[in-house]
Amino acid sequence: MNGIPFVFWLVPVASIVALCVAYYFFSKMMKADEGTPRMREIAEYVRKGAMAYLKQQYRVVLIVFIVLALIFAFMAYVLKVQNPWVPFAFLTGGFFSGLAGFFGMKTATYASGRTANAARESLDKGLTIAFRSGAVMGLVVVGLGLLDIAGWFIALNLVYHGENAALITITTTMLTFGMGASTQALFARVGGGIYTKAADVGADLVGKVEANIPEDDPRNPATIADNVGDNVGDVAGMGADLYESYCGSILSTAALGATAFTLNSDMQLRAVIAPMIIAAVGIFLSLIGIFLVRTKEGATMKELLHSLGVGTNISACFIAIATFIILYLLDIENWLGVSFSVISGLIAGVIIGQATEYYTSQSYKPTQKIAEASQTGSATVIIKGIGTSMISTCVPVLTISVAIMLSYLCANRFDLSMSTHSISMGLYGIGIAAVGMLSTLGITLATDAYGPIADNAGGNAEMSELGEDVRKRTDALDALGNTTAATGKGFAIGSAALTALALLASYVEEIKIAMIRATASGHQFVNAMGQIFQPETASMPEFMEFFQVNLINPKVLIGVFIGAMAAFLFCGLTMGAVGRAAGAMVEEVRRQFREITGILERKATPDYSRCVEISTRSAQREMIFPSFLAILIPIVIGIVLDVAGVLGLLVGGLAAGFTLAIFMANAGGAWDNAKKMVEEGNFGGKGSECHKATIVGDTVGDPFKDTSGPSLNILIKLMSMVSIVMAGLTVAFI
Amino acid sequence: MNGIPFVFWLVPVASIVALCVAYYFFSKMMKADEGTPRMREIAEYVRKGAMAYLKQQYRVVLIVFIVLALIFAFMAYVLKVQNPWVPFAFLTGGFFSGLAGFFGMKTATYASGRTANAARESLDKGLTIAFRSGAVMGLVVVGLGLLDIAGWFIALNLVYHGENAALITITTTMLTFGMGASTQALFARVGGGIYTKAADVGADLVGKVEANIPEDDPRNPATIADNVGDNVGDVAGMGADLYESYCGSILSTAALGATAFTLNSDMQLRAVIAPMIIAAVGIFLSLIGIFLVRTKEGATMKELLHSLGVGTNISACFIAIATFIILYLLDIENWLGVSFSVISGLIAGVIIGQATEYYTSQSYKPTQKIAEASQTGSATVIIKGIGTSMISTCVPVLTISVAIMLSYLCANRFDLSMSTHSISMGLYGIGIAAVGMLSTLGITLATDAYGPIADNAGGNAEMSELGEDVRKRTDALDALGNTTAATGKGFAIGSAALTALALLASYVEEIKIAMIRATASGHQFVNAMGQIFQPETASMPEFMEFFQVNLINPKVLIGVFIGAMAAFLFCGLTMGAVGRAAGAMVEEVRRQFREITGILERKATPDYSRCVEISTRSAQREMIFPSFLAILIPIVIGIVLDVAGVLGLLVGGLAAGFTLAIFMANAGGAWDNAKKMVEEGNFGGKGSECHKATIVGDTVGDPFKDTSGPSLNILIKLMSMVSIVMAGLTVAFI
Repeated sequence: MNGIPFVFWLVPVASIVALCVAYYFFSKMMKADEGTPRMREIAEYVRKGAMAYLKQQYRVVLIVFIVLALIFAFMAYVLKVQNPWVPFAFLTGGFFSGLAGFFGMKTATYASGRTANAARESLDKGLTIAFRSGAVMGLVVVGLGLLDIAGWFIALNLVYHGENAALITITTTMLTFGMGASTQALFARVGGGIYTKAADVGADLVGKVEANIPEDDPRNPATIADNVGDNVGDVAGMGADLYESYCGSILSTAALGATAFTLNSDMQLRAVIAPMIIAAVGIFLSLIGIFLVRTKEGATMKELLHSLGVGTNISACFIAIATFIILYLLDIENWLGVSFSVISGLIAGVIIGQATEYYTSQSYKPTQKIAEASQTGSATVIIKGIGTSMISTCVPVLTISVAIMLSYLCANRFDLSMSTHSISMGLYGIGIAAVGMLSTLGITLATDAYGPIADNAGGNAEMSELGEDVRKRTDALDALGNTTAATGKGFAIGSAALTALALLASYVEEIKIAMIRATASGHQFVNAMGQIFQPETASMPEFMEFFQVNLINPKVLIGVFIGAMAAFLFCGLTMGAVGRAAGAMVEEVRRQFREITGILERKATPDYSRCVEISTRSAQREMIFPSFLAILIPIVIGIVLDVAGVLGLLVGGLAAGFTLAIFMANAGGAWDNAKKMVEEGNFGGKGSECHKATIVGDTVGDPFKDTSGPSLNILIKLMSMVSIVMAGLTVAFI
Repeated sequence: MNGIPFVFWLVPVASIVALCVAYYFFSKMMKADEGTPRMREIAEYVRKGAMAYLKQQYRVVLIVFIVLALIFAFMAYVLKVQNPWVPFAFLTGGFFSGLAGFFGMKTATYASGRTANAARESLDKGLTIAFRSGAVMGLVVVGLGLLDIAGWFIALNLVYHGENAALITITTTMLTFGMGASTQALFARVGGGIYTKAADVGADLVGKVEANIPEDDPRNPATIADNVGDNVGDVAGMGADLYESYCGSILSTAALGATAFTLNSDMQLRAVIAPMIIAAVGIFLSLIGIFLVRTKEGATMKELLHSLGVGTNISACFIAIATFIILYLLDIENWLGVSFSVISGLIAGVIIGQATEYYTSQSYKPTQKIAEASQTGSATVIIKGIGTSMISTCVPVLTISVAIMLSYLCANRFDLSMSTHSISMGLYGIGIAAVGMLSTLGITLATDAYGPIADNAGGNAEMSELGEDVRKRTDALDALGNTTAATGKGFAIGSAALTALALLASYVEEIKIAMIRATASGHQFVNAMGQIFQPETASMPEFMEFFQVNLINPKVLIGVFIGAMAAFLFCGLTMGAVGRAAGAMVEEVRRQFREITGILERKATPDYSRCVEISTRSAQREMIFPSFLAILIPIVIGIVLDVAGVLGLLVGGLAAGFTLAIFMANAGGAWDNAKKMVEEGNFGGKGSECHKATIVGDTVGDPFKDTSGPSLNILIKLMSMVSIVMAGLTVAFI
């Protein structure tokens, strides 16, 4: 292991510390009392439902993983168009991501009953249990992610040490383990998203609209499924999504670092480990932030938000400062500029979060106007919501654009000459900006995962019919969770976009390596003019020229068109899936109301588990086709339209997918809060015509914000990932 | 005029014939009886409202035109970055487009009363009057468009004859007169779109939902404004949109032809006039088609569709055959391949039309499923509609993609070498595919403009309280109009996309010319490596390299991002505008019901003109900001991110805008027909809960399909057009 600087060991240490603290939080939470027998019973239902779902999902995913691993093995050992370590890297990536989801969800389902019980004592106790249990998810994700990265880095260094261009081979091999995380995230996000909204929409349509019983009412047979859904979608799904972004950004930045400094192997090594070190330090800073989150009894919404804000902001500020120190000590070329790249990613994350809050919180004009539109009925609520959210794409897109430009230019000293080194440095800057944005994921994910725990605690309190004051506390915790969920979504989309960009840049490198490998085994590449192309010595612009990746090439144009369409298609398919799955749920709830006499009079218990089963089964069935398509499209485009088409596809899919995702997330969030605003007594309050109109908006927004929108995060990353893994195959067809 | 082949004279002749036949149809229609005094009165109201709107709109547009013409004059005469003819070309383009809108709308508003009256006699008479009046719009658009093209071509040939590279200068100068058509179309589409839906949504919200009176009921004060809106949006707006596509495709193809054959001036001239000849022949074939449209009494919907289909299909088949003959006789290089390019455009148009019909007609599953979703309420109608329409983008995008590829490859003999000549030929192929798609615009636009005439005839019959049998006939004509309107929208979007692509290709040529002009006046271009760049001798790939138009350049990436966002932003702004304008209308209608006693008891007449005024004023006010933005974005990007950013912007905007436009048009059409399906007695029929749920869908769909969706057609063309006109300015900043 000589050669790897001592500071690298910070990486495995940080990941182990994260896992230890996660275990500490988990065991402390487990010691808390779960409350009355009724509360335990309900928590048990949700837990069992969630685990049943996860088991079923992992079964499907396992089959997919076996098939894909065999394909990769075939590509690696028979076709020889893939690095031999890839099948294994792929499997560990998926395994660790799945493990993180399992731990996160287990914790969440144990925590919600205990949060409700703690809320019987005080608000602070409730917040602490819920938030620290959310932190388990955050810490497990960053801990396992970084552990996997560190493990492979050490192992591959032992294998390849001393070989020529070893670091490039190592980092690009490791990059493909992101494919495992991507595949896991695909199924977790799409399946979880369909599950949660099928249950939610189904429960609402019959419960609130037809039977006129409140949300989370124990008489509603779908209510347990709805609570399971929160865990499945917002804990496991969100976790897998961000696990993918986290690993993807670190790995692609490492790969970009390896190619940026091919001539200086010492600098190269430092550039490769820099993103890992930043992530490791980010873990420690997240821990500080997590321990800072507390509140006092009777805290207002603003104070609650403030207490979470203190944690995340302090972590973010510290990592900003730490970055300068890390990059200075690592003596990275242009360390000051590269540090500013990281800062631009961090600031972009904050701005996108703020913009999301502005467009979705009822404290601001946009959502208020949507609530106001309820006075002329549900149609105007929808029109206003769609119109406003389309406009809301403006700030995040401009922010990401500026962040791309700044992180590129800061890292390459404002050099637009397009020399190979300046391009490589610029792309490294974009990658490390994504790392910066995601470095404090430990705490940001904690605030995200806190949401469904608080939501479930509220559901538990409601179903266990706890006292008014307890429900008031759980409502406060829940409302806080809604706000953090909205900003968390903005963060997830923004980081997905930056990660996808970094992956896009790595794709070109991966193609280069695949071409060098092909040349070594005797393949010759001839360009359009009939000249032989030497991938080993070619510069980045020469690669672009060889593949004619310019915007007049019809292959590129078609790629962009299909990329934009893929985003819409994927959204449409997942929306349709929710519609069908929710329909099945509606039928079942109606059947139970009809056939099990006495449910509405509280004389009989509904068959909760049947609803859980239906959601599970529909989600599993419905997720197959869109997932299959997301994997297939980049492969087909690669074979038919080669590298030019794939780059067009990735860029078109990224731009349209990012914009569409923000539109959908913001529309869903704004409709949700417009409904809440009416429920708080505005425009006639609960039960009024305006309330009904906003319920329609909220129901439409459910699949927008929790299924289709988030699934797009996966799509834009996955398409890049698939292209990277299939680079060898694409090259073989040239 | 020596040099121009004799066959060219077919172009002015065809345009004059088109105008003569239009006049013949108009005067024949005017001789028909307008019916009872009540019918005349209502027709008069609509006519006055429409003309008042047009006058107001032209007033705003005039100011914009004066300002822009002054800017162009400044650029041409002071900055010398623009051809001196451009300000004048720009003005005529706008003037002729406005004139076409004026004639079309005048005819439509005279025809609807007469159609209703003719329907008192027979279905065929009604159809003939309505359709031939629609044909006036179609013929005036193609006639004036081609006349303008022919006039400038003759005039500029007289001026530049004998000069070096004259044809390139001529065609690129003429291309900018498309900017006039674009600007006119922008205001006509955006303003008209806002007007029509403000009136429609406003009328529906109070009339149908609150006061519970049927559509087109004379008691509703907004009903005249609603009928005016159909003319303003669907006649004048649609006409201006397609006028722009028609001229844009012919002009850009001419420009691409001029650059494809710089070494063979004879071939060059023939390549330039080829698209004009195809358009001229298309006019004669459209006329044949128009005269073939007839029907018999008691015709079913299918038979009515068939009679329109006969006309359009025969025209399309004939033009396909004629193309081979024209290009063979003109002896265009690779005439057979180029002919197949035209065919691919024609077929793409047909497939997109069919796909639109499949996804929006109640005869097929998608719309039936949306109607079915009404059983679980309006939220599921919206979810299902959005999901299905997002999926519906798949076929049109793939069709356009294949059409791009085929028209490119057929024209350049399947040569992907990216040599300059092969690229130029390929781009010429894409351009001429757009011309093929639009060549029979005379009749396709006739079927489009027929829609609002039939719709208004139905409104007139309803308001004049004509007998049941007459209303049944006008209903049949109206239903036919709804179907043609939906396919017409698909056609408009598809042709806009192909036209925008051709304009995109011309943009690069325009930049080249601007650079040559700049070089001639002493400017020197230095590339990233510090070498001097010679625009005169540079090949297309060298241009791409000079501007680094590859997908790794952050400028390009940012351009694509902002292009995608611009499409969403433009949609959001127009949706918001409709919401606000409809709100004002709702207030006014409520006020009249409250203050004018006896309206609902038919004892007092509502103040129709006040509603017309409100719609006019809101539309004018609301169209300014989005229009301003559409013009500004490409200029700013050009200055900040130069050619790389602009090309990214155009491609991103085109791909995302095209997909979004299809999504919105199909969603709106499907919701409209789902509502009709329920009204026909399915799922409980009129007045049922299901009906109410589908009305929500229809209301949401109104701005989707008639405001925001169509406005995107303009956006994607206009951004290219502005970039072309501003090429000189962009180059000055390099």
